[in-house]
Amino acid sequence: MAQALAEEDTIRILVSTDNHVGYAERDPIRKDDSWRTFDEVMQIAKTEDVDMVLLGGDLFHDNKPSRKSMYQVIQSLRKNCLGMKPCELEFLSDPQEVFGGSTDCVNYQDPDINISIPVFSIHGNHDDPSGDGHYCSLDLLQAAGLVNYFGRVPEADNIRVKPVLLQKGETKLALYGLSNVRDERMHRTFRDNRVHFYRPGQQKNDFFNLLTLHQNHYAHTPTSYVSENMLPEFLDLVIWGHEHECLVDPIKNDITNFHVIQPGSSIATSLVEGEAVTKQVAILNITGKRFTVDKIPLRTVRPFVTREIVLASDKRFKGLEKKQDNRQEVTKRLMTIVEEMIQEAHAMWESTHGGNATGDEQAPLPLIRLKVEYTAPEGSKFDVENPQRFSNRFANRVANQNDVVYFYRKKTSVMRKIPNDSKELREGVAEALESVDTIKVDTLVQEYFAQQSLKILPQAPFGDAVNQFVNKDDKHAVEMFLLESLSTQVKGLLQLDDDKVTDDLEAQIEEYRKVMEKDFVIGQKKQAQRRRTFKPRPDNWDSDMDGHWHAQPQALEEVAKSPPPAASKSRGSARPASGVVFSDEDEEMLEEVVAAQLKRGARGRKTAAAPAKKAAPVKKVAATKKAPARGRKKPNPFEDSDEEEEDVIMEDDDFEPPPPPTRATRGAAKSTRQTTLNFASQSQRSTKATQKAIEISDDEISEDDDAFETMPTKRAKRR
Amino acid sequence: MAQALAEEDTIRILVSTDNHVGYAERDPIRKDDSWRTFDEVMQIAKTEDVDMVLLGGDLFHDNKPSRKSMYQVIQSLRKNCLGMKPCELEFLSDPQEVFGGSTDCVNYQDPDINISIPVFSIHGNHDDPSGDGHYCSLDLLQAAGLVNYFGRVPEADNIRVKPVLLQKGETKLALYGLSNVRDERMHRTFRDNRVHFYRPGQQKNDFFNLLTLHQNHYAHTPTSYVSENMLPEFLDLVIWGHEHECLVDPIKNDITNFHVIQPGSSIATSLVEGEAVTKQVAILNITGKRFTVDKIPLRTVRPFVTREIVLASDKRFKGLEKKQDNRQEVTKRLMTIVEEMIQEAHAMWESTHGGNATGDEQAPLPLIRLKVEYTAPEGSKFDVENPQRFSNRFANRVANQNDVVYFYRKKTSVMRKIPNDSKELREGVAEALESVDTIKVDTLVQEYFAQQSLKILPQAPFGDAVNQFVNKDDKHAVEMFLLESLSTQVKGLLQLDDDKVTDDLEAQIEEYRKVMEKDFVIGQKKQAQRRRTFKPRPDNWDSDMDGHWHAQPQALEEVAKSPPPAASKSRGSARPASGVVFSDEDEEMLEEVVAAQLKRGARGRKTAAAPAKKAAPVKKVAATKKAPARGRKKPNPFEDSDEEEEDVIMEDDDFEPPPPPTRATRGAAKSTRQTTLNFASQSQRSTKATQKAIEISDDEISEDDDAFETMPTKRAKRR
Repeated sequence: MAQALAEEDTIRILVSTDNHVGYAERDPIRKDDSWRTFDEVMQIAKTEDVDMVLLGGDLFHDNKPSRKSMYQVIQSLRKNCLGMKPCELEFLSDPQEVFGGSTDCVNYQDPDINISIPVFSIHGNHDDPSGDGHYCSLDLLQAAGLVNYFGRVPEADNIRVKPVLLQKGETKLALYGLSNVRDERMHRTFRDNRVHFYRPGQQKNDFFNLLTLHQNHYAHTPTSYVSENMLPEFLDLVIWGHEHECLVDPIKNDITNFHVIQPGSSIATSLVEGEAVTKQVAILNITGKRFTVDKIPLRTVRPFVTREIVLASDKRFKGLEKKQDNRQEVTKRLMTIVEEMIQEAHAMWESTHGGNATGDEQAPLPLIRLKVEYTAPEGSKFDVENPQRFSNRFANRVANQNDVVYFYRKKTSVMRKIPNDSKELREGVAEALESVDTIKVDTLVQEYFAQQSLKILPQAPFGDAVNQFVNKDDKHAVEMFLLESLSTQVKGLLQLDDDKVTDDLEAQIEEYRKVMEKDFVIGQKKQAQRRRTFKPRPDNWDSDMDGHWHAQPQALEEVAKSPPPAASKSRGSARPASGVVFSDEDEEMLEEVVAAQLKRGARGRKTAAAPAKKAAPVKKVAATKKAPARGRKKPNPFEDSDEEEEDVIMEDDDFEPPPPPTRATRGAAKSTRQTTLNFASQSQRSTKATQKAIEISDDEISEDDDAFETMPTKRAKRR
Repeated sequence: MAQALAEEDTIRILVSTDNHVGYAERDPIRKDDSWRTFDEVMQIAKTEDVDMVLLGGDLFHDNKPSRKSMYQVIQSLRKNCLGMKPCELEFLSDPQEVFGGSTDCVNYQDPDINISIPVFSIHGNHDDPSGDGHYCSLDLLQAAGLVNYFGRVPEADNIRVKPVLLQKGETKLALYGLSNVRDERMHRTFRDNRVHFYRPGQQKNDFFNLLTLHQNHYAHTPTSYVSENMLPEFLDLVIWGHEHECLVDPIKNDITNFHVIQPGSSIATSLVEGEAVTKQVAILNITGKRFTVDKIPLRTVRPFVTREIVLASDKRFKGLEKKQDNRQEVTKRLMTIVEEMIQEAHAMWESTHGGNATGDEQAPLPLIRLKVEYTAPEGSKFDVENPQRFSNRFANRVANQNDVVYFYRKKTSVMRKIPNDSKELREGVAEALESVDTIKVDTLVQEYFAQQSLKILPQAPFGDAVNQFVNKDDKHAVEMFLLESLSTQVKGLLQLDDDKVTDDLEAQIEEYRKVMEKDFVIGQKKQAQRRRTFKPRPDNWDSDMDGHWHAQPQALEEVAKSPPPAASKSRGSARPASGVVFSDEDEEMLEEVVAAQLKRGARGRKTAAAPAKKAAPVKKVAATKKAPARGRKKPNPFEDSDEEEEDVIMEDDDFEPPPPPTRATRGAAKSTRQTTLNFASQSQRSTKATQKAIEISDDEISEDDDAFETMPTKRAKRR
């Protein structure tokens, strides 16, 4: 009966990632490209009347966006997200929990702002939090009510991914977000089994599980990416940010059985082939446990044509290398090719915009990149022009008039100059050539300190300060580091007794340095956790009447982050359907709220303004006794395993046997996992039954509504 | 019958300036002071339930505020300005006009954001627009719907100050804003008679005229300030930003007859006596043409005690200078004084917070500044300690542990070392000593270039780039300048014929340099005018039926910016009641809108949802024929006048005789100008009469409502 799930049960999500607003904003030609396209994306959301927008990180190109970039983004959001039509998504999570304590409510439930189309976003590597207070641009947009910034990562070494739970009609969505962490570190955290995904305990198999992350998708180095197979297989769909190639058609992973969509960037930030793929946004239609994807090509994107040629094997250039003074001829023939490419770009634009092109949409200057390998056999030579001079020949005809052409020779030609017997040197050079594009500041700093030894300043904070300065545009980072470190040192030394001073001053300095190193590590953790605040037990909660505040049914359970390897092909059979009893208060409060929200969600908005009835004491169903979490400190199964060994047997010991009432439900759902049609209809029946029961108990506890301060029942809005 | 004007006719405005959010944000003790106090200001606005907040510039301390500063301000605004209570102020202006084309509506009329307390702000010298696109922080807040940024100055040399017109009950407010311009330049623009104040043509004398500006209030140098007497005397009240001393009691200017309030900064940014005055905000109650002021001291402001002593004449130090090695003794006695000051600070705090201090309000560490002149007669010496070392003695007891004390000697003691006969040197040194605190980057650059002569780069843009780099934290300014200048040069040179190259290359370079100098001046003007866009004539406007779009009654008239000198004491009698017919289309459209808004305002919100009746052709009253503005290009009367001569006879030639119908009204109002009581009741009567007439004509032209796209009639909100 899943056919019965129609439009009112379909959650429509516009998905876009890597908008890089601010990219090339000082380029005289391309300066408006990035925000123009982001504006188009937001306009599509409005025109298509989607339920929400999901952004996969790198909304901004710069960690500290220019005012112009920020202004344009605010304008696009304000123009397109606000409106009188209420958002139809029921919000079932605790906002404090899923938004890292930064806000009381999801933006569309704020009674003072009319949000029609909420935007949910994780951060990417370009717009991640940094600096004093650990804020990022998304924090500002969230504070202004324009964006819901979720999937925060307060601790990169111990990640808890708690979903935003949404419901529309019969469709329930668990939206997981995993904001960017440096790839090596994220890889390690996954490997160490310290990425914990949480699932709703009630009706968990009814939820469509969608994850958005922003990491390397492919193995640039063995440890600098996240493998799809590292992700838990309960997921239904993964939106992969960070990679700029647009692969918007869902690709199924046969190991994990989930699908992956890689929307790609909405602007080309480098002139490589992957960026020449048509830029599109995806509209995701989720109905029950099924989804479809509509693709919408972006019309504002500048046409981009790229080609690679090898002069030595290209018939248009063959033999030319043996001619004397062939520069003019080589240049002439290359120019012909670029001309062809420009024509191709115009044709591309015409084919997508032809006929209904409006005045605004005159073909923009295209991006053209011709990559030319000009290696010639020994004794001969392709005499290529200075690349910028060549490129400037196309001024006012292309958008990138300084780098139309990229000339390179095979690296072997460099290597040839190194004597064959110095194997070490050859390897060193080869490695250097490989890494020269990807080298990072922190690596440089690390390598530098490996050679040096600091006597006064602590090393790790120094490295961090340099990194903040270079990568996050924090001009005060080094100054603040120096001030703090030196004043700590001086204060310490001033407190020394006079007789000590001459004796072990150096040792003393060394000691303070070490203290600072240690403080840094602790400080980093504290900083990251800064904004994780949680609600205390409400004043009007009566433990005698209402039961222990912390002893509520388990609403969320922890799921091992790695899928079991062997059995993973037959989905759902190998996973033990078990839950962990959390030792942490916070999580129990979360469960509480989710349970209440699920009830509320079932009632819908109709009852929002209904007067509260007198609360009667409620016997909570299956209020499991709190038990300490076990197995957390066991040696990690990943610890010694090879990097490549992604699939590891899951440790059952990590899990507590589930409470009996939920087990039955889970079992039923599990057996229907591959037949989503049947499952959906089952779920429909069971949900309805639950709703009835819930409605009663909800009235009974209505006086406790104050416990959920963040909920949208307080004021009537948009009636 | 002005007594009849009661609460529903009183516009209540919380006034605050110079909040300097972000000041000392990297100071370990004071880092949260600035936003904590700004938050208090906004909370007072909410608690006091004012109609609006008026900020006088320098909301932010840094031109590019840190994310933390921006975040805190957004939070304070969002928490306190939004709400279900509708703002009761009728908005009578064209938003496009008074907000520089940046927005379609004042924030509280946006149907999608519920603003209870709108904030209106001009920019100061710290948070002025700069960089690509000429945006400032207030633009971002306005884009997010949190602030109404008015009083923009698109052209610093030709300033048109058009008021935001507001009405509540019978009280009409013309809110003028004049955002900061560099003092010397603003002074010159005033002197050159190029600051034009506009007044509503209809019922203009019913309006209470309030101006906010952000300039030097006192003559630091003869040309680096704005004199109160330069301001037009039709003003009733001036809110003076920029000066940090809190002088919140209105002070009457006996020349111009208006009052001046200088709210001062809400945080001490320098340790001088003016900043030690109790920090307060003003709540302005405007009823008809009268106003009262309530003062509210700010509770979060850190106590600050400052004293100045002269050791040589202080009895506690007398004779000490003749002792050998008096350092220890001097230090000891100074410490006693600082201790007294700390006690005084605590007593201050106790007296304002005592009794009802809550847990949050534990006395903060005070700011203490002791200014010590330690000049001693020749042959003797006060041996003072290193000031930082002295200050550090009070670590953890004061907030400014590095500069508790400021030691100085009389400048004469420096001068003494210069031989008496070298008069020139003495004067030079004296001048340098005077100016060392106030020297500015652009002066340095100018002086440098006065000595040098650039051959390739244009000078003015170079100076501008350096200034942007240093003062506006625009790290790309110099890079962009170089790129642009050099590429212009190179492009130009490449276009030269071959034979020319050797001959006059230098002349050619020189020429391009000059072209760039010229372009810069033009470019600056364009840049500044960038966002001044105006509505075209609406499509459904029928000139035959509705009259000429541009030929509407004069709603605004230009007022000479300087009051006539001799007659200024007997207010209102010397001013010729005459109006100028504008030559500019825009202004006529503005008049149009104001007239319609006045009608609308009279009807109130009740009729907003009423169905539009069929439009009948209307004969506009007194549709004066458009006449070219005269006298604009006459030699300026201020041109050759002395700087000090503020009061100059107004040139009647600058004005067109007014249309007969309005003259009568003006005359009546004029004669009652000093008896506001009678005036108010008169005004009340005449307003009512006008309202009736207006209501009819408003229905008649209701189909033309589309002409006023920005008006709040489109959607019902908060009912």
